[in-house]
Amino acid sequence: MPAPLSQTLFHPRSIALIGATPDQAKTNSRAQRILTKAGYAGRIIPINPTRSEIGGLPAYPSVREAPGPVDHALIMVPAAAVPGAIEDCVAAGIGVATIYSAGFAEIGEEGRRLQERIVATAREGGLRLVGPNCLGLLNVTDGIPITLNAAVEAEPLVPGWLSMVSQSGSMMGALLSRCAARGLGFAKLASVGNECDLGVGEIAEILAEDEATRAILLFLETFRDSEALARAAARAHALGKPVIAYKLGRSELGRRIAVSHTGAMVGGDELAAAFFRSHGILRVETLEGLVELPRLVVGHRPGTGGRRRAAALTGTGGGAGMIVDRLGLLGDEVPPPPEALRAALGAQGIPVSDSPLIDLPMGGTKGQYPAVLRALLASEHCDAVLAVLGSTARLKPESHVDEFILGAGQATKPLAVFCAPQADGALAHLDAAGIAGFRTPETCADALHAYLTWQAPRPRPAVPDAALAAAHGLLAARAAGVLDEAESCALFAALGIEVPALQLLQSPGDFRGEGSFAVKILSPDIAHKTDAGLVRLGLQGEAAVRAAAGELLDRARSQFPAARIRGALAAPMQRGLAEVILGFRRDPEVGPVVVLGMGGVLAELRRSFTLRLAPVSAAEAGEMVAELAELKPLAGWRNLPRGDLAALARAVEALSRLAALPAVQEAEINPLIIRAEAEGGAVAVDGLVRLG
Amino acid sequence: MPAPLSQTLFHPRSIALIGATPDQAKTNSRAQRILTKAGYAGRIIPINPTRSEIGGLPAYPSVREAPGPVDHALIMVPAAAVPGAIEDCVAAGIGVATIYSAGFAEIGEEGRRLQERIVATAREGGLRLVGPNCLGLLNVTDGIPITLNAAVEAEPLVPGWLSMVSQSGSMMGALLSRCAARGLGFAKLASVGNECDLGVGEIAEILAEDEATRAILLFLETFRDSEALARAAARAHALGKPVIAYKLGRSELGRRIAVSHTGAMVGGDELAAAFFRSHGILRVETLEGLVELPRLVVGHRPGTGGRRRAAALTGTGGGAGMIVDRLGLLGDEVPPPPEALRAALGAQGIPVSDSPLIDLPMGGTKGQYPAVLRALLASEHCDAVLAVLGSTARLKPESHVDEFILGAGQATKPLAVFCAPQADGALAHLDAAGIAGFRTPETCADALHAYLTWQAPRPRPAVPDAALAAAHGLLAARAAGVLDEAESCALFAALGIEVPALQLLQSPGDFRGEGSFAVKILSPDIAHKTDAGLVRLGLQGEAAVRAAAGELLDRARSQFPAARIRGALAAPMQRGLAEVILGFRRDPEVGPVVVLGMGGVLAELRRSFTLRLAPVSAAEAGEMVAELAELKPLAGWRNLPRGDLAALARAVEALSRLAALPAVQEAEINPLIIRAEAEGGAVAVDGLVRLG
Repeated sequence: MPAPLSQTLFHPRSIALIGATPDQAKTNSRAQRILTKAGYAGRIIPINPTRSEIGGLPAYPSVREAPGPVDHALIMVPAAAVPGAIEDCVAAGIGVATIYSAGFAEIGEEGRRLQERIVATAREGGLRLVGPNCLGLLNVTDGIPITLNAAVEAEPLVPGWLSMVSQSGSMMGALLSRCAARGLGFAKLASVGNECDLGVGEIAEILAEDEATRAILLFLETFRDSEALARAAARAHALGKPVIAYKLGRSELGRRIAVSHTGAMVGGDELAAAFFRSHGILRVETLEGLVELPRLVVGHRPGTGGRRRAAALTGTGGGAGMIVDRLGLLGDEVPPPPEALRAALGAQGIPVSDSPLIDLPMGGTKGQYPAVLRALLASEHCDAVLAVLGSTARLKPESHVDEFILGAGQATKPLAVFCAPQADGALAHLDAAGIAGFRTPETCADALHAYLTWQAPRPRPAVPDAALAAAHGLLAARAAGVLDEAESCALFAALGIEVPALQLLQSPGDFRGEGSFAVKILSPDIAHKTDAGLVRLGLQGEAAVRAAAGELLDRARSQFPAARIRGALAAPMQRGLAEVILGFRRDPEVGPVVVLGMGGVLAELRRSFTLRLAPVSAAEAGEMVAELAELKPLAGWRNLPRGDLAALARAVEALSRLAALPAVQEAEINPLIIRAEAEGGAVAVDGLVRLG
Repeated sequence: MPAPLSQTLFHPRSIALIGATPDQAKTNSRAQRILTKAGYAGRIIPINPTRSEIGGLPAYPSVREAPGPVDHALIMVPAAAVPGAIEDCVAAGIGVATIYSAGFAEIGEEGRRLQERIVATAREGGLRLVGPNCLGLLNVTDGIPITLNAAVEAEPLVPGWLSMVSQSGSMMGALLSRCAARGLGFAKLASVGNECDLGVGEIAEILAEDEATRAILLFLETFRDSEALARAAARAHALGKPVIAYKLGRSELGRRIAVSHTGAMVGGDELAAAFFRSHGILRVETLEGLVELPRLVVGHRPGTGGRRRAAALTGTGGGAGMIVDRLGLLGDEVPPPPEALRAALGAQGIPVSDSPLIDLPMGGTKGQYPAVLRALLASEHCDAVLAVLGSTARLKPESHVDEFILGAGQATKPLAVFCAPQADGALAHLDAAGIAGFRTPETCADALHAYLTWQAPRPRPAVPDAALAAAHGLLAARAAGVLDEAESCALFAALGIEVPALQLLQSPGDFRGEGSFAVKILSPDIAHKTDAGLVRLGLQGEAAVRAAAGELLDRARSQFPAARIRGALAAPMQRGLAEVILGFRRDPEVGPVVVLGMGGVLAELRRSFTLRLAPVSAAEAGEMVAELAELKPLAGWRNLPRGDLAALARAVEALSRLAALPAVQEAEINPLIIRAEAEGGAVAVDGLVRLG
């Protein structure tokens, strides 16, 4: 029975090095050197088939023969030998095996099978795995570096309060050095490699509980288990520890082939952004943001709603302009100092205009800059402060920082300091004082933007069972596959979304009705019915509808002899002010999402859409509707008639509840027609649903 | 008669320091110290009302009394004393006066008047001015620093081949230090301050001719004389010297109030981007791009058309992914290595997959990385190469760079090297070797993108006189003001743009016609006619048209009793596949531009448009049309009818020729209706023209 993970992962009392070697020229020998050099207080157990001693320590041919208990194993043998090593670890009752070895899922199908094999073996045996193909785990706090990384051997690891989980081993090392250069030490680091078992989320949750950790960095390439990451983010938030993510922009898997337009339209990065925002994870777009944002946010909490504002102060115009401009482009607010503040400063002899950027040329006379800074830090009109320093930061690094920044006293709100010239000394002094210093205007704006838009995690609203009872019933007997329009509309209706009154005609004579109708062939096997000429719109009166139905049925049967044709579907023509496309999908990376976009043929071209993790609350649905610029005219604009945007929001909320129906993989309403407020409603004219 | 500017500006044989002081604690004393310390070989002439000697040199109460000739004066006296100093300089026949003093246009109206005064005095007297409110001019090549800047005094100036013109004095100093930290010295630098006379463009042109200068940096806040800058860019291009600009993103003047939609829609940054692109100026979005791009492009020439491609090679996956991702988001191409290249490398024992990113884990075996790099540098399939280095760049800075980068041999195409870890040593070694090294992935992508999209300056096409003869005639007798729709349409027709057949009705009975018509009131004094109910569409037949005309005339006269009402304008209703908005304006910063955007009420909301400097060639007009995603369906898409996009392009080209009609300040066609190809044509249904 292994010891608990909280111990064996980062605090093992004993570590087996499987693949250890006495040959100091070989990479594998590094692991033992690194642990020894770090002064590891536990037992190091070299495992080697032919040696009884390595580096002065007793060695064993297998962990099975090593005296126990053994908490953790670092596996460094070739891929083919790893399954055997895993079996040995299980037999020895080891808690965690960190697999440095490559040659698994990352190389292709054969490696993937090998990886599945070791996962199965480990799972059965109660063994947890990190990797494979990873660079290891570093507990810097307690001097336990479980790794072969050359960079770790070459340089001292500085303890600190930052922890990191990385999907890129090499970038973990790169960030270690970049953070060290700025005096930022680490508590714990983990390289997850192929993430076959212990993943980013689970490890991040463990780090949230780690006492030495005050903030967590995530270097991500993809989401392998977003639910685990969501749990970690919620826990970190509860414990007041910011989580900061950098994610490679485009999904490496590319746009997935999807049945629906929304599936093709929405790319990986919008999904990632929605995920981070929803779970209260700060996101940086610049690499150095991972280095420079932590000091800005550690110990601070996210906002509860709406964007926040940054006040800006400079002694050198051009330097601050670059950042304020960028914040403006990002949609952040840099408010001018309020009247009362200006009056108070004026009374101290410090003239401050109503410009958003407070500019004290050359820092003003003695004491003015820190006085203004102190006032901004205390003022209610801003939630963060940007202070820019000029050439004196280079000429007198420490005294200038002392006078201008530290002289303002303790900062209770986030303070970002940008140095316009090359100013390593000033940055180092800020670093040592625990103040967030920035080397470039872009990273400064990136970090401020991340803080200003940081919101607490929003739990998904509960979907009442009653709301889904009818839908459950409809899907009860259905297998995987695509529902046709009639079945899809029935599902939408079951969710509470308005659909037209449909008539399914087996023969033209079945039709009854007056007014204007659309007729289309109903068949799960015929896509692109418009292109195939199997849709007719605007048919006036029974005779026209019946004639059209007959014609379409004949055409469908002759053009698509093998297709299953359920009949001709007749629906009253719908009129409204605008068309939108409303979609739902169960994204493999971030989970259920609901997407709202502009409809029509331009949907794919303009990519004008908004999305959220599903299900959404009524408030979130309203936000989504408000975010689509094209809908503004319907909200009361000039003399244009108002559209029933409330009905649209309700439809968004309703469709998003499909998240609670696991059978539904993807659903789309295209178009959803928004009527004028006078008539009211939003009606789903066409759609599809894919069950999985 | 002053000596030529080419001498007096950067190579003065004598410099008067107006406002010199023996008091070493005062800022003004710095100028003499700086020149002396630099070993200036010419005559330094301190000017001080009460001293006959300063710092061991003879001093004079005025330049008039100094022994001549005096080439250059640095004016450091308070603003109120500057006009007198200017008069003295004129009297003394000085060539250039650089005015450090503040208190001019930058402080407001009073300062602006003072500035105009000194400009007038100088102009009459043949004296050129730099500033006021500037930090000075530095000729580093020859050791002539004309400045009071403290940073310049504190540190040695390193000579080099880069020159800079900056609208921000403090950022000039900041960039000096950032470049120096990367071993980049300067030839000449100029801070232009308020740019009252010698501006960015004229100085940049002088620097293009400077032998020591191989590339020119511009730090810009606004365009004060874009024509001069265009000339400088053309000259620099002719001499093979890249010009690199960083411009603060949003116009400080904000969106200007304009008569037209396009005027309100288009912001400063799109205009700047069009200007830079058109004149062959490289643009960076990151500050450090000014530091790191020069080495990438110096000695290279822009492309002649189309985007170019960057090949990517790495020894550390995650590090390169960040840059390749960003290039993809920017629309740049990272092509996979072609079959032949892969085969050739395979034959050398180097397995390379068809991925766009060539990844040699840990750099591959000895010699592989430089061999691949050498092959990429020689290959036709790419125009630039990105090489990424990992942790070894930190562990063995010089040998790793030697082996992996320099070992590939001379680079004939631009080579960008990014170091993933903190690697100041490797960057310094690259700097010393003249290779473009990058500290952050964002600046690396920014620089590569700038190079890949760099095109030679495109001269504006000549507008044949015959094409404008009719238009000239129409406007000959017109004063400033807004043309009404009928007059605007006449002008558009004169340019060769199709307009409807208009009838101007003084009374309803004047109307003759069949079919469907629109009627609107013609009045230069009534804006927003639709909102005022003074437009009727879709009137069928004479009776309806006449009734509508009568009704509108009555309504207009009663609602707007003071307005000049020229009559009711009747035009046949136009039908087409799409509507666009086509605009022209003479932008105060970048000059004449033509703007094409999507029309309708959404024009203002979606800001979907493209623009170019005007006039445009037929090819450029075609590019613009191709850039609007919303027009793609008209280009043949699925089964949708094709629109006459050729007619649209011709209309764009035609309207852009207004650039050659100085009387026209602004013109807009809204909407321009694009017909189906079958019917053909693009017709201007409504518009306005503003004469200045």
